[in-house]
Amino acid sequence: MDPRTPVRRTTMTSTPVRVALVGAGRIGAAHAETLARRVPDAHLVAVVDPRPGAATAVATPLGARAETEVDAVLGAADVDAVVVAASSVAHRDLVVAAADAGKHVFCEKPAGMSLVEIDEARRAATAAGVVFQVGFNRRFAREFAQARDLVESGTLGEVRQLRSLTRDPGRGPSDPDVVPPWTIFTQTLIHDFDTLNFLNPGAHAVDVVATADSLLFPGHATLLDHATVVVRYSNGALGTAEASFAAVYGYDVRGEVLGSEGMVTMGEGASSSLRVHGQGGRTASTAHSDTELLRDAYAAELAELCAAVREGRPPAVGADEAFAAFAVAQACIDSMTTGGRAAVATSVLQEA
Amino acid sequence: MDPRTPVRRTTMTSTPVRVALVGAGRIGAAHAETLARRVPDAHLVAVVDPRPGAATAVATPLGARAETEVDAVLGAADVDAVVVAASSVAHRDLVVAAADAGKHVFCEKPAGMSLVEIDEARRAATAAGVVFQVGFNRRFAREFAQARDLVESGTLGEVRQLRSLTRDPGRGPSDPDVVPPWTIFTQTLIHDFDTLNFLNPGAHAVDVVATADSLLFPGHATLLDHATVVVRYSNGALGTAEASFAAVYGYDVRGEVLGSEGMVTMGEGASSSLRVHGQGGRTASTAHSDTELLRDAYAAELAELCAAVREGRPPAVGADEAFAAFAVAQACIDSMTTGGRAAVATSVLQEA
Amino acid sequence: MDPRTPVRRTTMTSTPVRVALVGAGRIGAAHAETLARRVPDAHLVAVVDPRPGAATAVATPLGARAETEVDAVLGAADVDAVVVAASSVAHRDLVVAAADAGKHVFCEKPAGMSLVEIDEARRAATAAGVVFQVGFNRRFAREFAQARDLVESGTLGEVRQLRSLTRDPGRGPSDPDVVPPWTIFTQTLIHDFDTLNFLNPGAHAVDVVATADSLLFPGHATLLDHATVVVRYSNGALGTAEASFAAVYGYDVRGEVLGSEGMVTMGEGASSSLRVHGQGGRTASTAHSDTELLRDAYAAELAELCAAVREGRPPAVGADEAFAAFAVAQACIDSMTTGGRAAVATSVLQEA
Amino acid sequence: MDPRTPVRRTTMTSTPVRVALVGAGRIGAAHAETLARRVPDAHLVAVVDPRPGAATAVATPLGARAETEVDAVLGAADVDAVVVAASSVAHRDLVVAAADAGKHVFCEKPAGMSLVEIDEARRAATAAGVVFQVGFNRRFAREFAQARDLVESGTLGEVRQLRSLTRDPGRGPSDPDVVPPWTIFTQTLIHDFDTLNFLNPGAHAVDVVATADSLLFPGHATLLDHATVVVRYSNGALGTAEASFAAVYGYDVRGEVLGSEGMVTMGEGASSSLRVHGQGGRTASTAHSDTELLRDAYAAELAELCAAVREGRPPAVGADEAFAAFAVAQACIDSMTTGGRAAVATSVLQEA
Repeated sequence: MDPRTPVRRTTMTSTPVRVALVGAGRIGAAHAETLARRVPDAHLVAVVDPRPGAATAVATPLGARAETEVDAVLGAADVDAVVVAASSVAHRDLVVAAADAGKHVFCEKPAGMSLVEIDEARRAATAAGVVFQVGFNRRFAREFAQARDLVESGTLGEVRQLRSLTRDPGRGPSDPDVVPPWTIFTQTLIHDFDTLNFLNPGAHAVDVVATADSLLFPGHATLLDHATVVVRYSNGALGTAEASFAAVYGYDVRGEVLGSEGMVTMGEGASSSLRVHGQGGRTASTAHSDTELLRDAYAAELAELCAAVREGRPPAVGADEAFAAFAVAQACIDSMTTGGRAAVATSVLQEA
Repeated sequence: MDPRTPVRRTTMTSTPVRVALVGAGRIGAAHAETLARRVPDAHLVAVVDPRPGAATAVATPLGARAETEVDAVLGAADVDAVVVAASSVAHRDLVVAAADAGKHVFCEKPAGMSLVEIDEARRAATAAGVVFQVGFNRRFAREFAQARDLVESGTLGEVRQLRSLTRDPGRGPSDPDVVPPWTIFTQTLIHDFDTLNFLNPGAHAVDVVATADSLLFPGHATLLDHATVVVRYSNGALGTAEASFAAVYGYDVRGEVLGSEGMVTMGEGASSSLRVHGQGGRTASTAHSDTELLRDAYAAELAELCAAVREGRPPAVGADEAFAAFAVAQACIDSMTTGGRAAVATSVLQEA
Repeated sequence: MDPRTPVRRTTMTSTPVRVALVGAGRIGAAHAETLARRVPDAHLVAVVDPRPGAATAVATPLGARAETEVDAVLGAADVDAVVVAASSVAHRDLVVAAADAGKHVFCEKPAGMSLVEIDEARRAATAAGVVFQVGFNRRFAREFAQARDLVESGTLGEVRQLRSLTRDPGRGPSDPDVVPPWTIFTQTLIHDFDTLNFLNPGAHAVDVVATADSLLFPGHATLLDHATVVVRYSNGALGTAEASFAAVYGYDVRGEVLGSEGMVTMGEGASSSLRVHGQGGRTASTAHSDTELLRDAYAAELAELCAAVREGRPPAVGADEAFAAFAVAQACIDSMTTGGRAAVATSVLQEA
Repeated sequence: MDPRTPVRRTTMTSTPVRVALVGAGRIGAAHAETLARRVPDAHLVAVVDPRPGAATAVATPLGARAETEVDAVLGAADVDAVVVAASSVAHRDLVVAAADAGKHVFCEKPAGMSLVEIDEARRAATAAGVVFQVGFNRRFAREFAQARDLVESGTLGEVRQLRSLTRDPGRGPSDPDVVPPWTIFTQTLIHDFDTLNFLNPGAHAVDVVATADSLLFPGHATLLDHATVVVRYSNGALGTAEASFAAVYGYDVRGEVLGSEGMVTMGEGASSSLRVHGQGGRTASTAHSDTELLRDAYAAELAELCAAVREGRPPAVGADEAFAAFAVAQACIDSMTTGGRAAVATSVLQEA
């Protein structure tokens, strides 16, 4: 969203922003609890999930109402904004429907299943004049935000080499067949692609070369569970994005920016400053889930939603960022298909 | 408070615990904001401060009412609990008045200006059957709580040597004459005395020897701005508590427990996982205030207040802990007066 | 070198291994000092450099003799081994000449300017039955050796994702034209290629894709000063090697191995355990040169040379490792030429 | 030793300083190996130990001769300096004998069993004009030396609060009766007393209060295995020295200086930059012995001996430092005896 695009301003009142959550899965439940308990300016009004009981299980303890139909909240007068945490395949339709209903929208990543879908979602939100925020939570993690500030302020000089890494905790999927193709690019590394974009402001990704394999289920037809992607930027910077579906030591998110005047690293996985010294050495605990490691970031991104709604302005991270990150993911798919380098689209026209 | 002492149970309802804050100074304002925005089960109803405008400045942005008289909240039907953040000299009277009015109480440390005062506050709360919690925030800091768990679980074995340290940020008081005598013991190190007690459960402080001086205003009649205290415990453990009023590098809170089976350290002052690498080396930011370093602990201690009220049980840290920590502070004053070792009182009778 | 290949055994005596150093440049001077002062089993006999005065400046303070001709040491009866630290273009010829003269050889990386050259050097050493060690110093850095042990012992499980990084201190070359083409691959990243090989024992590099550019002198015809290389291994593992010629914060060498059972990281650049806490935060010093960061590793690799000579056995890192690392560098050159993925040669026949 | 005191200058030659080691126990054997292998300017000539076989076991592998009588090396023309690592009770006599024989002396701490003994040793060395160095190895540990530099340069401002800590690895002595009384002060904490003195240059210790107990053998008549000592300095600074005989997690040496302009910490026990991330968190290895943790410091202190001998100058740490540290230990004994604060002697006359 162009920062100059006007956003329909919600009448400023002293009441919190009233939010409905769509999708009561793992991350949806976490968002619901965050909205209800940790975002002062949000009021969780309703939780929607078509599965019998799923919405109720999340909504009731939080004092919200449960719905099984999205229309029940899109048509509700007491809902200002919708947080979309449903299956990714439904994201585009839900964003469009919410925008058409005049509701502000926060959508989990990816904002659609293709650049065309994301563009459609973007257009609907722009036409409706609603806030459209995308769930790139790392931008709200304190150290990543600080790193961006150091880049923008010029403290680090010219950006030259970057790294962003995601490793999911545990031993990976038990059934590889349930993982949709290209998941590692469109669902996991999309966070890292956005992080690289975020840490290299003013530049855009030019091309990528992706290397990926199934190391958990060797020879599996579609699963890719480890990937390393090199992204070239318009300012010459070289970015690396790495992902693994199986880190037994916990949820690992790190970043790094080498600039002409210095370097920053973010993320080290220690979940507190406690150090236990025993016969095996000195041990720090590591975080074991995204909701643990990024707990404050999850609250901050939803606070940003409320602030944007309240102030009638585009959110800090919106459709353009969603498009740019997905374009890198799409180029990875192209790179995997050809085995070589693939260009990153900058507009939807290029995707065909 | 004996854990078996019954506490008057607030009728369980779905509404939050309604809290009035007394004392709109720096820490009071922080508590007010925490209650209003970061403790889901609390509802900030009122802020009391006799200074014209002080209560209003804090209360209004948070949607609470401002009062200049304590009686206005002690007599209010919509107040379940009172958080006392007034001047320490008023703590005892406020706790007693709140208890007598049937209000649950959270009191900032110290809970009184002497062991007699703390005992009076304790008796009033017990007689009224209200929750009486004391503001020892470090018990709610994640790493300190983890350390205690490691001690209690036996993982660290017998506790043998401990350290707790507090250094206030900046260059110290601009006017040494406004610092009441013994402040370093009764206001600052009291946190460390409680921390040592907390980390050595089942034992009690036996005696202390305190060494302190004014290094900021050499020769000042009453100011003590640096202090090192050695505390002997009933289980033989040796504790050290250190404080300084002037740490230019920030607010520094650390702890350490050496046990027969291992050692833990807590606190390192880095305020995020960001590391900036420049020509001067690799730099981590440090926290510059208590409300920054202990932000989550402040929320957790007030959540504990609400939970104790809700569940009709004594809080995790109450009058007995307040008494025990103040007894160490009192012994430090005795030690400074005599120059030697001083016994730590275990009951108010010993204080005379 | 096949570990079973017999090596001519130097008669075991109580005298140190007598070493001549060829090439009195920066790293040669460092090797000379290490040999003379920090490797107990080495005796520095002579320093050779054709430039008038260069050998003398290094040799005299260390009590060694200075020579301007290599033949002076190859024909000397009091020289057991030669350490080659001359220009890379001379490495092959010097190794062959030394081997032909019956001298054991330690050669700085790369061991030749092509796979053919390295193969020739290897054959000469094998034919002569002399020790032929290559200067891959990171294998001797404590943490990298520990990481390899953890891999070999199975503690980390299957190797899945690796990283090795080199950043040279400072602001890069003042004159880009004096940097030979492909230096970043053949001189700098060759350390990282060997490190990746070292950390993934039993597997070999299959193909690479290299991304590199001149960010210091944009548009320069041949200089590549930043590079990111992705290496695929025969066991499926994905390696990333990164290099920069310009790290203002110091000399930065790091490594990382993700295995199915855990992850290790090596290198953090703090040159001591000192932490300075000031108004800008908490700062650790960083190392500013290879000889500072890897000081102990330099001594350990030359101690290994002496041990191999003494014990009549192949060294821990020899011609095969030199060949394997150079094959990755060569594939990077191929990748840069074609823009795509390039196969890694496993024998010299494949190079044509 | 007054820095202006002339020291007899050994004729400058190109041969190393020839050293005899007295006392082939654990630390003596370590010194012997360091002298023979890691101090380029030292040549280990002989090892003396009255126990049959002890000297031979150490000397032979290092190419030195074994002796059972001290006189054999004191009278030897090929010995320039003597390193005394015998039992502490013999230190004074050995230093005096060595000095009288015109040999330079390095003596392990403490340099005597009383201030009188240390003074006698000092006088003998001064009279003979020989170098007399004392084994305070932490002054040669990189981070402690850096900390001192930061104090001396004024970077840290005025010194206000200090800490030095020693914890011996393992579970403590198996037989408490073999530990001489006051060992924790005269043998262990003497390192910390010297460290505090070192880190607070220009000031001297004024008085101490010691708290110590046997926590390993509760009620033992003489063993003190844990101690915490507070030292007041002439510039007002408050120092804390802590020791334990039983750290299961390894050998732990740390230091800390709070100054008016900043703070430094030294020592964290990680023995390399390797971090192992597993299901239990992120683990760093810890050092398990003094010779591991302080390996470089041991070499540096013996290099300093050789340099002082070579340059005909007093060593960096000599009899005055030995006296000052022992004076603190002696005051601790006094403090333990009286239970109160005890003055620190600044001259031998005060000891009576």
